[in-house]
Amino acid sequence: MTSAERPFRVGLLGHGTVGSAFAALLDERADEIAAVTGLRPQLAGVLTRSRGDFGEILAGSDLVVELMGGLDPAREHVLAAMAAGKHVVTANKQLLSQHGEELWDAAREHGVQLRFEAAVAGVVPVIRVVQESLAAAHIDRVHGIVNGTTNLILTEMARTGATFAEALADAQRLGYAEADPSEDVDGRDAAAKMAILARLAFSTPVRLDQVPYEGIEHITPDDLEYAREFGLGLKLLGTAERVNGGLSVRVHPAFLYAGHPLASVAGPYNAVTVESEAITEITMSGPGAGGPQTASAVLGDVISAMIPPASTPETTAALPLVDDVQSAFYLHMEVADEPGVLAQVAQILGLQGASIKSVVQKGLGDDARLVMVIHPILESKFLAARELIGRLDFLRSAPRAIRVIEEEFL
Amino acid sequence: MTSAERPFRVGLLGHGTVGSAFAALLDERADEIAAVTGLRPQLAGVLTRSRGDFGEILAGSDLVVELMGGLDPAREHVLAAMAAGKHVVTANKQLLSQHGEELWDAAREHGVQLRFEAAVAGVVPVIRVVQESLAAAHIDRVHGIVNGTTNLILTEMARTGATFAEALADAQRLGYAEADPSEDVDGRDAAAKMAILARLAFSTPVRLDQVPYEGIEHITPDDLEYAREFGLGLKLLGTAERVNGGLSVRVHPAFLYAGHPLASVAGPYNAVTVESEAITEITMSGPGAGGPQTASAVLGDVISAMIPPASTPETTAALPLVDDVQSAFYLHMEVADEPGVLAQVAQILGLQGASIKSVVQKGLGDDARLVMVIHPILESKFLAARELIGRLDFLRSAPRAIRVIEEEFL
Repeated sequence: MTSAERPFRVGLLGHGTVGSAFAALLDERADEIAAVTGLRPQLAGVLTRSRGDFGEILAGSDLVVELMGGLDPAREHVLAAMAAGKHVVTANKQLLSQHGEELWDAAREHGVQLRFEAAVAGVVPVIRVVQESLAAAHIDRVHGIVNGTTNLILTEMARTGATFAEALADAQRLGYAEADPSEDVDGRDAAAKMAILARLAFSTPVRLDQVPYEGIEHITPDDLEYAREFGLGLKLLGTAERVNGGLSVRVHPAFLYAGHPLASVAGPYNAVTVESEAITEITMSGPGAGGPQTASAVLGDVISAMIPPASTPETTAALPLVDDVQSAFYLHMEVADEPGVLAQVAQILGLQGASIKSVVQKGLGDDARLVMVIHPILESKFLAARELIGRLDFLRSAPRAIRVIEEEFL
Repeated sequence: MTSAERPFRVGLLGHGTVGSAFAALLDERADEIAAVTGLRPQLAGVLTRSRGDFGEILAGSDLVVELMGGLDPAREHVLAAMAAGKHVVTANKQLLSQHGEELWDAAREHGVQLRFEAAVAGVVPVIRVVQESLAAAHIDRVHGIVNGTTNLILTEMARTGATFAEALADAQRLGYAEADPSEDVDGRDAAAKMAILARLAFSTPVRLDQVPYEGIEHITPDDLEYAREFGLGLKLLGTAERVNGGLSVRVHPAFLYAGHPLASVAGPYNAVTVESEAITEITMSGPGAGGPQTASAVLGDVISAMIPPASTPETTAALPLVDDVQSAFYLHMEVADEPGVLAQVAQILGLQGASIKSVVQKGLGDDARLVMVIHPILESKFLAARELIGRLDFLRSAPRAIRVIEEEFL
């Protein structure tokens, strides 16, 4: 340490994969951080389940990094740290998507920073770009692939023809999926991230329980095969967009046309596209997870907190949340191979106002399948039509629907 | 204006396409900026060639936005503004790539901010991400498509089979290329941007005249046809990377394998990939230019300057600049269709240590062409081999070489 450098003490809560990677990275990069900031970062203490005292660590820290995960005791610790006037950096998406307003209010009240780049899209710095670069861009829409596990599973299903169960097992073997993968594959993890992202992009409070989500467990190799025929890519897509003066936030599988900036994002990657009239669009992508990558995002936040004060803007002109939005749909039906099938399906769709963009009929006899792409229609109307179609005698199983993102880019 | 809001006065130098778009955007977004920052931005004055007085505008401004372009009088005005204690936001890549160190020194000396997001990659916030999110990431390499005009021309050549001249004329007709496009198509514009980006990513002073560049004027439809056969995309690529303890910065056309994150960037777009061991890689993309987009990037900088102080880090551990680097190459030769041609070419390559990865021989008689991809080799050695090959009797024209970026990603 040179004489001009003052120490900057970091209290670390949690010492799992990300926590230990962060501790190692902080040590490795301390010289460079000291050169950039004039402050030398050092660990003030580490709290784990079995060791460390939170009060002592807090008293000896200039900033607290929360990497415990979960709601309790993470919430109390973060609130206590801010009440004590300490900046906090966290990667805890569950905490922010369920108690974000309470935490942001506390940060404003105590005049401290609450930073959370690592909570949303792995190493992709979408939080910073939305909060700072696009602070005045009047964002219209955010699309995100914000769960790397499901993107890897869908990529492998498309590449190898594997089933969901097979691709999931492969991802687990490679360490890309947890032993209990349910929060990833059912879309809940992505929904939490989209709630946080929507809060920032649209200055509107959004809680996890306000984000409808649908996972990829029901996606079949068949869907991916038809996707290829239609020239589409299949992604688990988070959307937050202005709709009729309100805000819609949701997560579901969706087909993307080949020209969409997210269509080519393959493997365990995250990517976010931000659209606004002023900027057209920005897309950012990178690895979705991994201890060292997440630790790097956390460290970027720590350095930012060491340099300048940033404020958490208050909610201004919050938007109403919208439930029912327009989507194009792919509709997959296993049908008996008999005359009049297409006509009956088309009639039901027509009565709900759904217009068919393209149709493919495949197979014969017991293997006959009818696949359509439906032009954008209010989701409630499409779902009503699907419900009626599902009651038709000649359906051999429930019809499957996947949203299609229309071509809107170059 | 509410009583709590103080005004924030912006002096605008230059009122061309970007300047007038900035003035309009500042007005349009003033309410939202006031809500976020507590300060209400307003134009303090506009300097054009025919109107306005710099001294008066400076005296009445809290911050100066320089959108005049060119070196003089932009340089004196920016220096004078900083000497007067004003923050400066500029989009002037020529100025920064030729006088950057002088300007950054002045910013540090006078304790003001010098921000320039719009100088490098249009609306893509690569400067902020490199300076802030990746402040401690120890960047290994930056690859960039930083000129939208040339990316559009190459995209159209690939799509339609047009010649360079035809695609350029189309781009000019559509307003994507200037009447005098030389700085775009010869690579100099991209070189200026890479000099700035390399300065920040590697804390090493880099001037435009230290960046070797090569343009796309010599690219033929043939090159793009072969690219398709090899499964490659052809881009005008800027590179800044650590090489043997030094730094190499350069711009040249290069083939990218289909899996490379920049390979799918099409049309008048910019994109930058930042690689580092800690983060693996981040890719950002968006429109490369356009008045409203550039104005939005300028406004993002203005808002950042309104909120927190940021420092321009001093140069720490500057790297030596490296001239000669390893590259893979595509080598295209128009040859007489006679025995022994391939053997002689292979012999020359072998003597220089170049190893052939793949070969395609096409056409007959006067139309015979030999195309190879050469494994990575020191550029000086490859160029020596090409020089010798060019002297062979059976060559019908000078051999053409284009660098190939090896597959290093997923």
